[in-house]
Amino acid sequence: MTAKSYLEYIVREIHTTIVATVDDEGLPVTAAIDMMAADEHGLYFLTAKGKGFYDRLVKRQYLALTALKGEDTMSCVAVSVRGKVRELGNERIPELFELNPYMKKIYPTEESMQALTVFQIYEGSGECFDLSKKPIERTSFTFGGAEKRAEGYFITDACIGCGSCAAVCPQNCILTERIPYVIEREHCLHCGNCLTACPVGAVERRAHTVPGTAVLRRTE
Amino acid sequence: MTAKSYLEYIVREIHTTIVATVDDEGLPVTAAIDMMAADEHGLYFLTAKGKGFYDRLVKRQYLALTALKGEDTMSCVAVSVRGKVRELGNERIPELFELNPYMKKIYPTEESMQALTVFQIYEGSGECFDLSKKPIERTSFTFGGAEKRAEGYFITDACIGCGSCAAVCPQNCILTERIPYVIEREHCLHCGNCLTACPVGAVERRAHTVPGTAVLRRTE
Repeated sequence: MTAKSYLEYIVREIHTTIVATVDDEGLPVTAAIDMMAADEHGLYFLTAKGKGFYDRLVKRQYLALTALKGEDTMSCVAVSVRGKVRELGNERIPELFELNPYMKKIYPTEESMQALTVFQIYEGSGECFDLSKKPIERTSFTFGGAEKRAEGYFITDACIGCGSCAAVCPQNCILTERIPYVIEREHCLHCGNCLTACPVGAVERRAHTVPGTAVLRRTE
Repeated sequence: MTAKSYLEYIVREIHTTIVATVDDEGLPVTAAIDMMAADEHGLYFLTAKGKGFYDRLVKRQYLALTALKGEDTMSCVAVSVRGKVRELGNERIPELFELNPYMKKIYPTEESMQALTVFQIYEGSGECFDLSKKPIERTSFTFGGAEKRAEGYFITDACIGCGSCAAVCPQNCILTERIPYVIEREHCLHCGNCLTACPVGAVERRAHTVPGTAVLRRTE
């Protein structure tokens, strides 16, 4: 699946997502926000300028969100996106209202719509976590030129093939046919049991992706 | 409804919530996390020590979450909670697994459970946003001794009763029988139209609640 198809899946199949921003004290704030449209350039949503959410977006220019499909814990799909945000203003509002006619019920008149403004997540990365698959399945994507970085747990050449890691893996996702063993990262829960169990320090944890940050360091 | 009943509603009726923490770069990160139990002392959840989520919890001791009930945008209920977090360790894990037997499918053996640890949100505040009601309904609560603070839009004595604010309110939630007008805050979207429209500056926006912070300043 391409990044665009993940973003379209969010808009079409989930729509109401939970977003997170950071306040002046450096603490997270969450809220429910609908994702109104998606294309190869990112995700689009609306907010009103009178909200604290608007202030935090303008100040930090960054948003994280998770969209959850399904109510049952053991069969839900969670798609998370993090990335840089910019304000596009009110030009695309008529188009977004047309795509999402229910918005007319929340903002029924032209006058009441004047507070609204459109934002775009234009560069970032995402992860899809599918709990309906057994073992669970994890896939990732990037868009808008964000760098893709490998993250999670890896087994190095120091592996002696003793089996300690495989014995504690809740997902049974360590391939033990050859030494060094290999972690199937698309099924890994990132629980860290393998790292704790390995007697020779052959399991490495690599840094979690920080989309946006990596790109901020580029000179373009 | 009491704070306890809101927290219990999250655990029983929604269960899988979207949580937000803040990373080393000061950027928000979201993920799906199940709320395993609730009582008058807060909310309880599990995570594995190998996750980036664990590191961020330990470092910042703070969590924000929103729990969404219902798939349809115009009839969903969103309950948000923000507050201080502490690690309780693994003592309550058997109890939480008994309350949530599906956890055995994710962590099937005693060995695989060793990475798990319990956290509690022990002091914070919350808000319930009910979009199934027309006009929408907003209620708030606190627990663990967090201060309750009024937030949102207010009309002061400077009001001249001209009607400009009521004309732009998408929720029709400004009472105009008497001067000064009164905003029904439980129905307010916080869009800010009234503040923009008022010709005499009679509409005030008060700071958003920062639970935890207010309490951190106390000397107890």
